[in-house]
Amino acid sequence: MAEEKKAKQYNFRDFSMCEATVQMLEKAAADGVETAFQRAAEMKPCPIGADSACCKHCFMGPCRLNPKDPYAKVGVCGATIDTIAARNFARMVASGCAAHTDHGMSMLDVFREVVNGRIADYKIKDEEKLRTVAESIGIETAGREVKEIALDLYHELERTYTQVEGEIPFVKRVPPKTVETWRKLGIVPRGSMREIMEIMHRTHIGVDQHYENIVKQCSRTALADGWGGSMVATEISDILFGTPKPLVGGVNMGFLKEDHVNVIVHGHEPNLFESMIDSVNDPALVEKAKEAGAAGINLVGMCCSGAEVLSRHGVPHVGNFMSTEVVIATGAVDAMAVDVQCIKQGLSTMAKCYGTKFFTTNPRAKIEGAEHIEFHEHTPRSCTDKVVQLAIERYKNRPGRVVIPQRRDMGIHGFSHEYISYMLGGTFRGSYVPLNENIINGRIRGLAGVVGCTNPRVRHDYVHVEVVKELIRNNVLVVQTGCSQIALAKAGLMKPDAAVLAGDGLAEVCETVGMPPVLGLGSCVDNSRILIACAEMVRTGGLGESIADLPVAGAAPEWMSEKAISIGHYFVASGLYTVFGVGFPAIKGTKFHKLLFEGLEELGCGKWGFAEDPIEMAHLMISHIDKKREALGIMGERERKLFGMEDRRAMEV
Amino acid sequence: MAEEKKAKQYNFRDFSMCEATVQMLEKAAADGVETAFQRAAEMKPCPIGADSACCKHCFMGPCRLNPKDPYAKVGVCGATIDTIAARNFARMVASGCAAHTDHGMSMLDVFREVVNGRIADYKIKDEEKLRTVAESIGIETAGREVKEIALDLYHELERTYTQVEGEIPFVKRVPPKTVETWRKLGIVPRGSMREIMEIMHRTHIGVDQHYENIVKQCSRTALADGWGGSMVATEISDILFGTPKPLVGGVNMGFLKEDHVNVIVHGHEPNLFESMIDSVNDPALVEKAKEAGAAGINLVGMCCSGAEVLSRHGVPHVGNFMSTEVVIATGAVDAMAVDVQCIKQGLSTMAKCYGTKFFTTNPRAKIEGAEHIEFHEHTPRSCTDKVVQLAIERYKNRPGRVVIPQRRDMGIHGFSHEYISYMLGGTFRGSYVPLNENIINGRIRGLAGVVGCTNPRVRHDYVHVEVVKELIRNNVLVVQTGCSQIALAKAGLMKPDAAVLAGDGLAEVCETVGMPPVLGLGSCVDNSRILIACAEMVRTGGLGESIADLPVAGAAPEWMSEKAISIGHYFVASGLYTVFGVGFPAIKGTKFHKLLFEGLEELGCGKWGFAEDPIEMAHLMISHIDKKREALGIMGERERKLFGMEDRRAMEV
Repeated sequence: MAEEKKAKQYNFRDFSMCEATVQMLEKAAADGVETAFQRAAEMKPCPIGADSACCKHCFMGPCRLNPKDPYAKVGVCGATIDTIAARNFARMVASGCAAHTDHGMSMLDVFREVVNGRIADYKIKDEEKLRTVAESIGIETAGREVKEIALDLYHELERTYTQVEGEIPFVKRVPPKTVETWRKLGIVPRGSMREIMEIMHRTHIGVDQHYENIVKQCSRTALADGWGGSMVATEISDILFGTPKPLVGGVNMGFLKEDHVNVIVHGHEPNLFESMIDSVNDPALVEKAKEAGAAGINLVGMCCSGAEVLSRHGVPHVGNFMSTEVVIATGAVDAMAVDVQCIKQGLSTMAKCYGTKFFTTNPRAKIEGAEHIEFHEHTPRSCTDKVVQLAIERYKNRPGRVVIPQRRDMGIHGFSHEYISYMLGGTFRGSYVPLNENIINGRIRGLAGVVGCTNPRVRHDYVHVEVVKELIRNNVLVVQTGCSQIALAKAGLMKPDAAVLAGDGLAEVCETVGMPPVLGLGSCVDNSRILIACAEMVRTGGLGESIADLPVAGAAPEWMSEKAISIGHYFVASGLYTVFGVGFPAIKGTKFHKLLFEGLEELGCGKWGFAEDPIEMAHLMISHIDKKREALGIMGERERKLFGMEDRRAMEV
Repeated sequence: MAEEKKAKQYNFRDFSMCEATVQMLEKAAADGVETAFQRAAEMKPCPIGADSACCKHCFMGPCRLNPKDPYAKVGVCGATIDTIAARNFARMVASGCAAHTDHGMSMLDVFREVVNGRIADYKIKDEEKLRTVAESIGIETAGREVKEIALDLYHELERTYTQVEGEIPFVKRVPPKTVETWRKLGIVPRGSMREIMEIMHRTHIGVDQHYENIVKQCSRTALADGWGGSMVATEISDILFGTPKPLVGGVNMGFLKEDHVNVIVHGHEPNLFESMIDSVNDPALVEKAKEAGAAGINLVGMCCSGAEVLSRHGVPHVGNFMSTEVVIATGAVDAMAVDVQCIKQGLSTMAKCYGTKFFTTNPRAKIEGAEHIEFHEHTPRSCTDKVVQLAIERYKNRPGRVVIPQRRDMGIHGFSHEYISYMLGGTFRGSYVPLNENIINGRIRGLAGVVGCTNPRVRHDYVHVEVVKELIRNNVLVVQTGCSQIALAKAGLMKPDAAVLAGDGLAEVCETVGMPPVLGLGSCVDNSRILIACAEMVRTGGLGESIADLPVAGAAPEWMSEKAISIGHYFVASGLYTVFGVGFPAIKGTKFHKLLFEGLEELGCGKWGFAEDPIEMAHLMISHIDKKREALGIMGERERKLFGMEDRRAMEV
């Protein structure tokens, strides 16, 4: 079997456009080690499951409908394709929302313990943000102590998770007309735990069997993620660890150092990473590393917590989700510590092959074969120090050959919705007025959020990069998070120089301000920053009254996780057009699909879109932006003449 | 297509042992209408899904492993069969727990509003139970007003759902040694919403990937169902609507009346049913029915809320889950009102075929094609009166031929753990001492809970009936709930006469006390009564110190729902051996399967079992009971000579 696989020749450039990833894929293959890329190439996705035409919500099944003729039959219970697909979709939303809820609750627990003085390793770093967030939900701040405000904020934000009736606190940040739509539709979230529980009830056999009603609960739950779980996680992280401000940061595997003890933190929660920063800077541990013959300790990030600390502290980032296995093939990774979400179980095998120490740290996420060193927020260093010590041990006995792809890509990271305001408006008149003005005058056509995972079912990084290039070429300012942001950083688009790739109008704005045409906002949980930016744009005026009026669109070109579905749906429920690539878990032509792709917009929300091709994806977004510009009456002659899909097609002939 | 199906000849006796169901299956087939029985016969279950060897928790898949060689490959992310099956199992537990959590929360909401005087249609009917339940969790009752106690109880029980840290209140009812085991394993539930949310997080791509850790969270969540969501639902229902006491009740379709307006309530929440009882007894509505030419209004139940009101008020019950479609083929059902859980979407089509008015009433559970008349607890009659009015309309214009199977089965229903104590101990010395004594002296070999759904993948009712007959023949006292209870009631085993089918020892006890050998405890949410009975048996003494010591076993011979998995797992986590029929979502020989079927017992919990054949199932349970008797040192000569599996096999030769 192993030999058979080795014999199979792949052109790894088809798998990824990331040079370092390709190089390591080649090395791993030569070493006889397989990764998720090969596994994806060798395992055909279940064609019924991929179309969401199967149901295993009870044991009368599992039932399988025919994706090619979805109304030909129903499940044993009588469930139609619309019920089945809506229920499957709902569970994806529930899982995605749960991921961000659990993350946010952990952050809030840490915040409470820091405020109460029971955790000394972290502190409130950004008091200004604390006050701003508190004020945004009506907490009095004038003349009050930080601790008092913080405790009020804690108690108020806890409702985001535990409340069973009423509206979650951050609904106060949503433009009134958008909230009005939500109230009319009955989709204002109560508390995220209740919404998740209710989805799990409603998707049980014989409960909710009307796709419209199920989608309503999906919207309510997704909003409890975007304006709840995720937003609390982001805001509390900023308060505790500092709101990101632009800085020069590097990405790619060239940031591993052959002569250093290399430690990678991979996951989603900043707590582990922040403590690891302290550990690797501890003189005693650095000394130990030197005693072991290393020049020092080198800490790098991967995936989303990596994107967060890249934004906050400029810690180098060595790759996104689809690079997490191959980076181990460098042989240079002495330890990888992981927490939660998007940690491939295959990492455990990979780490064994290369002698990398692989540690799980969160009680919610253990992996067979990984050593578990539990991370406790009250004594964070006891975990991270131990990881570093064991990394040093491995460095001393580093087995095999070390091959580090020598690519380093520098760029500007660390934008935040606050900084966008400051950057465009200046210190004393920081506001979204200049952004809105530039949109109204047409220099900037609109805003696009390009976010989300990478997925071995498409060419790694490629779809992200091409979508973004096409968008900026058409004067759409792009904001990014998570693995998508890292893809573009590797492609060099986080540099102000990248303005040369932008259309005239956007390039002019970028050059004036000195900003890149692509702004990285952090991890996937930080997609909530895009929501706040949208709310600010509405509040600032001139671009309509609700989020649905804005010339804004979103995309997850290479999505793979249930979090992505939840994020996509909270963008849609908030009023945005959101386009996914790869594939979509619904059959075109079914009523459920029509509701997501058309019906929701008629109800005052946004809508879903789908395209595999990046250029088509970009133009779906641009068309939507133009539609909104038309509706706002700001579609000048100039924009109408912008380079569109038709021109492109004409050129190709 | 329709003709092709009609041409297909089935022997409907293979589908069901319920005469009435068979008769109606024949009628429906003659009418050209298909049901879940035919759909099951015609749709092969997905063989990979049924073995839980597929995963669609992310869009790199859906991945399919080979159930025949489960360790040959892993999912794209590297997930092994153990991770995949454990995650799938966990989501089943989450959904089952959510169903009971949402149900219990609704009951608690009604309770609060009744106590606060904001709901007048219901009241506290059972003050004694209120006091007992309050005392069981340490609420002072002596000399206090009902309202005071009730408010304290409300606030305390609310923690069952919303609490994020600590132990849920009913943990106080669990035998100390059992709690000790739970604490050691870290599986004492905090709040059910948190546990459900955490499962949905942990089963997201790249989070928990150690089957042992996942199963821990399954246990914690299932316990939050059994000792939380379900138990609160049962106790509050008893307080509001009265604790069941034995009464003569009838089951089967013969309780439909051709000359009456027939109204069926089908679902799980007693609120709707209790209000419907008032509506059908309203003189104005009865008069209206008479004006329409009917002799009166006939209210009957189905499924679980039906089992509850059968127990509480003796309202006739016309059939369990697998009879809900066919009953409509009688043509006699003027209206069917449903709430939540186990409502087949196929009912909507069936109702259309026969002109039955089909109403959904719960905002969480709408069905395409059904008319929605929302039930509000504050004004319950506005819904139920309307249903009755529309049923009368349909009676006036009843289309087609009415055929009612003339079978009525009487039996004793309405046992409760309180009544078992009273029945065996008498009014003044009500206790579990006589039960324990009869177990210790060997007249009763042990206790078996036979519960759960019906499933068209096996012969309807047959497995339930045969398992129970074999158990009582071997002197095992059987307690029942839900659809299983209705199966046995139809088979006549709820009558004291049925003691003739019991072994000598059990028959002697039944005859002395005047009780049937099979005791019906209510709906599936009332499985919590079995837990309390077990806790009482431990507390009473002589049968060990923890639930795991008891000579008790459980079975769900025809299970189909995710609730069944959650219930099964809370029995297992509580210390009981629980055997499922039909099929089991795990592959024999895998580590995950071994943990469920062996490992958990070694940790001090119970364990899972599986058998398709009812006699084998009964003897798995009996062997377990005997093992526990041996361990307790109460395995006398007499028991060793009881009729066992070997004797039976010997006879068959």
